[in-house]
Amino acid sequence: MEKITDLIADKRNGKAHSAADIARIINGLMDGSVKDHQLTAWLMAAYLKGLDLDETTTLTDLMSRSGSVLDLSAIGDVVCDKHSTGGVGDKTTLVLVPLLAAAGLPMAKLSGRGLEHTGGTLDKLEAIPGFNVNLSQADFIAQVKRIGAAIGSTTQDFAPADGKLYKLRNETATVDHNGLGSASVMCKKLAAGANLIVLDVKTGLGAFMDTEERASAIATTMVEIGKRLGKPTVAVVSDMNQPLGFAVGHALEVKEAVETLKGEGPADLTELCLYLGALALEKAGKFADREAARKALEQHIADGSALAKFEELIEAQGGDKSIVDKPELMPTARFTADLTAPDGAGFVETANAMVIAKAAKAMAFGNDDATIDLAVGVVVHVKIGDAVSARQPIATVHARSEEQLKEALAGIRAAFTFSTEVVKPVRLIHNVFE
Amino acid sequence: MEKITDLIADKRNGKAHSAADIARIINGLMDGSVKDHQLTAWLMAAYLKGLDLDETTTLTDLMSRSGSVLDLSAIGDVVCDKHSTGGVGDKTTLVLVPLLAAAGLPMAKLSGRGLEHTGGTLDKLEAIPGFNVNLSQADFIAQVKRIGAAIGSTTQDFAPADGKLYKLRNETATVDHNGLGSASVMCKKLAAGANLIVLDVKTGLGAFMDTEERASAIATTMVEIGKRLGKPTVAVVSDMNQPLGFAVGHALEVKEAVETLKGEGPADLTELCLYLGALALEKAGKFADREAARKALEQHIADGSALAKFEELIEAQGGDKSIVDKPELMPTARFTADLTAPDGAGFVETANAMVIAKAAKAMAFGNDDATIDLAVGVVVHVKIGDAVSARQPIATVHARSEEQLKEALAGIRAAFTFSTEVVKPVRLIHNVFE
Repeated sequence: MEKITDLIADKRNGKAHSAADIARIINGLMDGSVKDHQLTAWLMAAYLKGLDLDETTTLTDLMSRSGSVLDLSAIGDVVCDKHSTGGVGDKTTLVLVPLLAAAGLPMAKLSGRGLEHTGGTLDKLEAIPGFNVNLSQADFIAQVKRIGAAIGSTTQDFAPADGKLYKLRNETATVDHNGLGSASVMCKKLAAGANLIVLDVKTGLGAFMDTEERASAIATTMVEIGKRLGKPTVAVVSDMNQPLGFAVGHALEVKEAVETLKGEGPADLTELCLYLGALALEKAGKFADREAARKALEQHIADGSALAKFEELIEAQGGDKSIVDKPELMPTARFTADLTAPDGAGFVETANAMVIAKAAKAMAFGNDDATIDLAVGVVVHVKIGDAVSARQPIATVHARSEEQLKEALAGIRAAFTFSTEVVKPVRLIHNVFE
Repeated sequence: MEKITDLIADKRNGKAHSAADIARIINGLMDGSVKDHQLTAWLMAAYLKGLDLDETTTLTDLMSRSGSVLDLSAIGDVVCDKHSTGGVGDKTTLVLVPLLAAAGLPMAKLSGRGLEHTGGTLDKLEAIPGFNVNLSQADFIAQVKRIGAAIGSTTQDFAPADGKLYKLRNETATVDHNGLGSASVMCKKLAAGANLIVLDVKTGLGAFMDTEERASAIATTMVEIGKRLGKPTVAVVSDMNQPLGFAVGHALEVKEAVETLKGEGPADLTELCLYLGALALEKAGKFADREAARKALEQHIADGSALAKFEELIEAQGGDKSIVDKPELMPTARFTADLTAPDGAGFVETANAMVIAKAAKAMAFGNDDATIDLAVGVVVHVKIGDAVSARQPIATVHARSEEQLKEALAGIRAAFTFSTEVVKPVRLIHNVFE
C-alpha cells in the first residue's frame, strides 16, 4: 500500500490518482490512518492541481458508500431527488416536491440546514407548526411509497466521508472547487438512493458559484458523474443575482411557496419550478416531451392537486396543514417597515441577493438563545429591470424589534441600485446540462 | 485580525503575505489558535504558489524568535556556526570546528541527530567514549569562550515553531521547498546566536537537493535571508554524488576526521574543510584574502594545533581524547569483508552515495535494542574516475554479524558502476554564494 505522503506528493506534482489511490485516502479518512493534517495538504494539492473526471467520479462513488445508502427500490422504478447548490429566497423544493409528486413522480428529498448566507429547507419547513423533518429511514421510504413524497433530513449516516472532508475543506479554503464540490454534492445524492437527480446550480451575487462559467463547469461535472455512476442527472444553471421570488426568510418563504402552488406566486419562482419539473418528468419518461410535461404541471397547479399534495405532505410529517390558508399560524414578526426608492429612482439595476441574505440572516440568527427566528426576513417587491417611482416601497422588513428593523433597513438599502436608463430583466435560466 | 482561512485563500490564490499575515500564522501555530490541518493546507499552498524573499525572511525571523535565542555576545565580536544540509560520510563539522577554532575563530556549533539516510554529528561524537553533547546553554557559551569551540545539541528550545512546522511538512510532502526549507535551516542558525554562518549545501545522489539548480537556489535564498537579518552568511554548493571522504559510519567517520586533522585525510574532505574554513576566516575579517586564510589553516594542520584543539574539545566535553591515537577505543565492528571490483573493471563511474548510505544505515539501525550501532559502516576505497583493476577491493564493510556483512555487501554492490572509457573526476565545489 502506498504511503500517504507519496500520494500527497503525487497530487502535488499534478499526477492523476488511480482508483486504488483514492480508496487509500478515503479509507484512511474513515479508519483514521490518514490524519486530518495530511488530508488538508492533499485537499490543497487537489484544489490547485485539479482532479480529473475519473478521479472525481471515484471520489464521489467511494464517499457515497462510506455510510448508509438508502434502498428506494421498493418505491418504484424511478425515484427523483432534487438539489440546489444554495440560493437566496430559494424555496423551489417546497414547490417542486409536491408538484412533481402530484404529477406521479415519486420525490424522495433529503434536505439540509442553512449554509453560510443561504437558508435551509429543513429550517423553513419547521416554520410549519408540528412539522417533523427527522424521519427514520424506514418512515421516509414508507411515506414516499404511500403519498409519493417526503422531505427528510440528511444525517451523518449518509456519506460520512464527505461530512468529515467538508468540515476540513471549510476550515482550509478548499470549498469552492469543481471536483471537490461536485463530489461532495453528488455523493450525498447517491447515498440518498434516488435514481433521477435534478440539480439547480445557482450563479450570481447570491450564489456560491459567482460566475456562469464556474457554475456551468460544476454542473457539467455533476451530470457526468451521475451518468458514469448510472444515475441519470440533469442540471440547470439558474440566476441568483437577485433573490428568487420575493420572500427571504423562513416562514415568509413557506408562505410564498404556498402562493406559488396556488398559482399566485412570483413569475420567476413559478417559471423555475415548471422548468425543472418538466425536465424531471421528461427524463423520468413520464411524458414524451418537455412541453407536454409542463402543461401537465400547470394543470396540477390550476386544479389544486399540487397544493393538495403539499397539504398531504405536511400532514404526513405531523405539521398543521391549515397554514396554507392561514399563514399567520406560522411565526410572524411583530415589526414591519418598508424600504422606499430614493427620489427620481428609475429602473432597478441591482437587488443584490447576497446583501439581502446577510441582512435576513443577521435577523434570524441574531438571537440570544441561539435558535433561529423563523418569523423575520425581507420581502422584496421589485425585480431587476422594474420601473420604480420615487419613494415607492421596494422591500418590507419583518423584524423582531424596532432596533432590528432599523438595522435591517440600513443593511438592505445597499442592495439596491437604480438607473435612469432602461434595464433589461435578468435571464432566469442560463443553461441546462443533461 | 484576518481569519486564517482568508490567509490560506490568499496564498492559494498566489498572493504575497504581509509580515502581519505571517505573524498571524506563526503566532497561531505557537498558541494553538491555528490548527495543524490548517497549517498543512497553508504549507501546501505555499509549496505550490511559492514564498517570496520578503515572506521567507519574515518567516525565518519569526520562527527564530519563537523560543530561546542564544546570546553569544560575551564570546566575542564574531562567532561562527556551520551547517550542512546533510550528506553521506559528511564529517566536515568534526574537522572544521577545531580547525577554525585553532585559527582563532570562535565556533559555537549546534548539531543534530541523523535525518533520513544521513548520519548525525551528535551520534558520531558519541562514538567517543564519555563525550557529552548535552551541554546547558551556559556551559556551551562558557566553553566557546574558554577554548574557542563547542559542539552542542539543538533542542526544542530553539525555534520550536520550526520544529512543529517541520513535523507537519514531513508528513505532508512539503519538505523539499526552497522558501520553507531555507527558513527552516536559517531560523535554527539564527536562534543559535552566531553572527557568521557558513553553509554547506549538498547536491547529488546522496543529498536532499538532487539537482545543482535546486541546491544553488536554496543557497542563494539562505545567504540573502542572512544578509537581510544582519547575519553574514556564506554558502557553498558541494558535491554529494559519492560519499565525502571514504568512511560512512559513526566511529569510522570520527577516525577519518582525526586523520584529516593530522593531514592524512582524504583529498576531497580535506579540500572541502580548507575551502569552507578559508571562506569563513575571510568573512570574519581575520585574513585579508582567502588564500592567506587557507595557508594559515594548512599550517594549523601541519603543526598539530588543529588536532590539539580537537583533543581539547573532546576533553572539555568529557570525552576520552586518547581515541585520536587509539581509534580502537571507539566501538569496533567484529566482522569485516571487502567488496571487490568485477572482472575487467576499468574506471569508477558511480559510487552512489544514497545506496551506500542506506546500507550503512540499515546496519547501524538494524538493532533489536533500538540503539544506534556506532561501530558498523562502510569504508569506500575508490572515487569516481579512479582506475580499478579486476577483483581489486573497492569498499570494506564493517558489520556486527556475518549475516549483516552479507546483506551490506549485496546492498552496496549496486552503488558502483564502471566504465571502460576514462571517467572524469567529480568537481567537489560546484558553486559559492556570499
